[in-house]
Parts: sequence; C-alpha cells; structure tokens
Amino acid sequence: MHTNNLEKQVAFIKEIDKIKFIQRKSRLFNSDRRENDAEHSWHLAVMAIVLAQHSDKPIDLLKVLKMVLIHDIVEIDAGDTFFYSSTENHDNREEELVAAKRIFGILPKEQADELIAIWNEFEDAETDEAKFAKSLDRFEPLLQDAVNDGGSWAEFDVPYQKVYDLNKTIKNGSTTMWKYAEDLIDESVEKGNLRKE
Amino acid sequence: MHTNNLEKQVAFIKEIDKIKFIQRKSRLFNSDRRENDAEHSWHLAVMAIVLAQHSDKPIDLLKVLKMVLIHDIVEIDAGDTFFYSSTENHDNREEELVAAKRIFGILPKEQADELIAIWNEFEDAETDEAKFAKSLDRFEPLLQDAVNDGGSWAEFDVPYQKVYDLNKTIKNGSTTMWKYAEDLIDESVEKGNLRKE
Repeated sequence: MHTNNLEKQVAFIKEIDKIKFIQRKSRLFNSDRRENDAEHSWHLAVMAIVLAQHSDKPIDLLKVLKMVLIHDIVEIDAGDTFFYSSTENHDNREEELVAAKRIFGILPKEQADELIAIWNEFEDAETDEAKFAKSLDRFEPLLQDAVNDGGSWAEFDVPYQKVYDLNKTIKNGSTTMWKYAEDLIDESVEKGNLRKE
Repeated sequence: MHTNNLEKQVAFIKEIDKIKFIQRKSRLFNSDRRENDAEHSWHLAVMAIVLAQHSDKPIDLLKVLKMVLIHDIVEIDAGDTFFYSSTENHDNREEELVAAKRIFGILPKEQADELIAIWNEFEDAETDEAKFAKSLDRFEPLLQDAVNDGGSWAEFDVPYQKVYDLNKTIKNGSTTMWKYAEDLIDESVEKGNLRKE
C-alpha cells in the first residue's frame, strides 16, 4: 500500500519539476533574469514564514505554506498569465481546474483531493489563509518591480492606476503590508519608474 | 514596531534572492540544466507535504517545511559543496554558522534566533523532523540522478559504494523511501549508469 503510494508520489514529484521552466514576467531582485514558478513559489513560502505576523487575522501557517507551494503547479498545463496584461484572458479558472485535476490526480486519491481543495481555496480567496497567501503573491513581484527601477511596470508600460488597483488586494490579507506597498508605489512614481497621468 | 520589523524582513527577502544563482551539480528531471538552490528547496518542500506519511516517526510537518525551505540559505556566503566530492571539504559547518548568523541576522532578533535554531537542528540531524528533512534532501537528487541516466554519478564518475554509503542516511528518516532508493541504485547499476567493481 505504502509502496504503491510512493510510486504515484514519485511520478508526481517528477511531473511538477516542469514548473522550473515556466518563466514569469517579473525579474529577480539581483539580476535581469526572469523568475520561474519554482523560484517564485519558494520565495513566497519563506515570506509566509517571516511575514506571518503581519496577517490581519490569525492564520494556520501550515495551510498558507501548502497554498503558496502548490498554487502555480496548474501552470504546467494552463501557462502563466501576465498579471498586468490587457490582452490575455485572466479568467482561465476552468482551464486551471482541469490542470489541477490532471496533475494532482497523479497522487493517491486522498492526497489529490486535499491538494485540489487547497488550490481551490487559494483561488477563491475567501478564507483568512487564502487572503494572506494572495497578499504574498502580490507583494513579492511588487517588491521586485519597485527594486528593479519599475521592472515589469516599465517594461510593459503599465500605468500607476492599474498597478494600484490590482495590488490593493494585498490589503485583504495585511494592512501593514499594503501600507508598505502603497509607499513603494508612490516612490516609484516620484522616481519616474511608474507612469501617472 | 511592526513597520520596523517589516523593513528588516523585506531586507531579508531581498537578500535571500541570491540562492537562485547558486547552482547545484545535479540536473533537473526534464532537462540538462543544473538545478539552483531555490528550485531545490521548493521541490523538497512539496516532497515533504506529499511524502510525510513515509516518515518512520510522527513529525511536525510545519517544522520540516521550515527546515527544507531555509536549509540552503547559508550557501549564499558559504557556497554549495558537491555531495560526492572527494576533494572539497564537507566540514564547513563553522563557515556556514557564520553565514547563518549574518543572513538570518538581517531579520528581527526573535526571528533570527528561531531560524538559526531550526538551521542548526537540521544540520545536527538528531530530531525526527531533521532526520526526515535530511532524507528528503538526499532523496531528491537521487531521483534526479537515477532518471538522468546516472546524472551526476556518471558525470563525476562516482562509484556505487560511495552512492550507497552517502545515501543510506535516507533510512534514518524513512525505511520506505530507503527501500525505494536502494532499488533505484541497483537498477542504475544494471543499466550501466552506475559503476560497481
């Protein structure tokens, strides 16, 4: 039984290696290279550990870690959608759910069901854990863009209002992190790294 | 107070980005590219979640996750040592401790102390959580080398006995995972991907 589980789990472990090839639009803090989904997920997980105290609500850190570690695995099939894109369709939840069922479905059934449920909870962004995980998922690329002289905002000519509107969901998880983010957005405008009409 | 903590935490978040540039000797499952420490740490964390049931002893999964997520951060200063190297010195614990103090020391003191303690616990490999985390840290590259036609074993001409001896610590955390690993090692010999005199 355990051995049978392990076969399935190893197949899953090999499959998810593919997210190391999914490139995001945002770049690393210390270089021009774009970040991949595995690096991004690792960074969110460490951020969850060190920033948990800033969640407005008490959270189950273990559940937040599971969320951020697995949230992008569906992109193996569904691809990465640029957060600020005005042409790509962000409403690909159906496609991502099919991906979740295929990829997590490689695992023993009980685990597959648990991880699909955690992925759905993250996407629904209604529980305190999901709200905080979503805050982290916004906060990391915002820090990167602010550090990288505007980063993907400058590269893809994203205006201030769009950056502000799409990132203010950080507030749903953490007032403190949102205040910090607002300051970074304002500084980016002052430095000429973010266009404000 | 919180804002002051956040400044330090953001400085830490930026600093640890550097592990995305630390290349390991082992290669990804699906390509010839070498794996970096962030990708490796992410993979171990997801493995901890899906393989936890194979730990011989009951474990605190949250602690295991913290261990595997932060275990390689010291390599920003101390560098990666090839696991099978016969020339490099593996006994760089002192150097790594200095690195741990500098890097985790960027965080607010209470957090720095907690993460240094968790890093030390992992390195000591005495608690059930540390033993299982160490098993994962061996199991991932072993799976990679076995899949990649011998991978780093073949590339650096590592003999069977060394592979066997250095990986048998997997058994300290999980009898089931070690049995699986033993089979993979034997298969690699049969396929001619691992040299046995």
